[in-house]
Amino acid sequence: MTPGETIRDFPIGKKVQFSKTVSESDVYLFSGITGDFDRIHLDEEYCKTTPFGRRIAQGVLLLGYTSTASTLIHQGFGRPLVSLGYDRIRFIKPVFIGDTVTVTYEVTDLDIERSRTIAKVEVVNQHDEVVVAATHIQKVL
Amino acid sequence: MTPGETIRDFPIGKKVQFSKTVSESDVYLFSGITGDFDRIHLDEEYCKTTPFGRRIAQGVLLLGYTSTASTLIHQGFGRPLVSLGYDRIRFIKPVFIGDTVTVTYEVTDLDIERSRTIAKVEVVNQHDEVVVAATHIQKVL
Repeated sequence: MTPGETIRDFPIGKKVQFSKTVSESDVYLFSGITGDFDRIHLDEEYCKTTPFGRRIAQGVLLLGYTSTASTLIHQGFGRPLVSLGYDRIRFIKPVFIGDTVTVTYEVTDLDIERSRTIAKVEVVNQHDEVVVAATHIQKVL
Repeated sequence: MTPGETIRDFPIGKKVQFSKTVSESDVYLFSGITGDFDRIHLDEEYCKTTPFGRRIAQGVLLLGYTSTASTLIHQGFGRPLVSLGYDRIRFIKPVFIGDTVTVTYEVTDLDIERSRTIAKVEVVNQHDEVVVAATHIQKVL
């Protein structure tokens, strides 16, 4: 990216991808950091009694992967961008330990007046099923 | 909570809180898990050149703390609830390493037909400033 000085310089349509196999350590460390010890993430035997049948990754862990994509998208831009929030997030399908997910992050719009980028975020699993959909907003500092 | 069998049994107005001092290890482990190495979280010298002046916690790390509250709210309920998503999230003020944040999670509404709880989520820092505001949706499995 050519270094930009204002939001006007940010290219609409710019897209990045980020892939990761969801590891047990990702899920467990995330629980340790946050304090979220829901059995649905950590107790395989309990999960066998639920419709999922096994442990599922935290939705917010998957959002963490999308944050990585949101950082990659502004590498090389002349000014820092920070996350302002999300307009809508849906965790559409469960993600299991061992699944490989791919985040696609695409800047679809700019809010010039408020110095914001608006992006469409989609996460798919190894079967090309959409597991997370979101709209993310970043702001030029 | 009295164990409930259907969404109708979930008490509207139920509220939980969760507090944590944001540690450097939280921020660094979170970067290691997700791959988000934005300098705004990890490079103190760089941050001195930004309006924040020092490293800020990842917004999604703060959401992780709110997930903990969303798990605490349904402890003791007769059926599992899982996160379906968020309708709006705003990272209103920066959170710094060493800040102590308190999440308040309150179920404000039920969507009986779709077996969902809707909650107002607010995170404040040690100065009682709101740093994150969100609407969270959980679904009875």
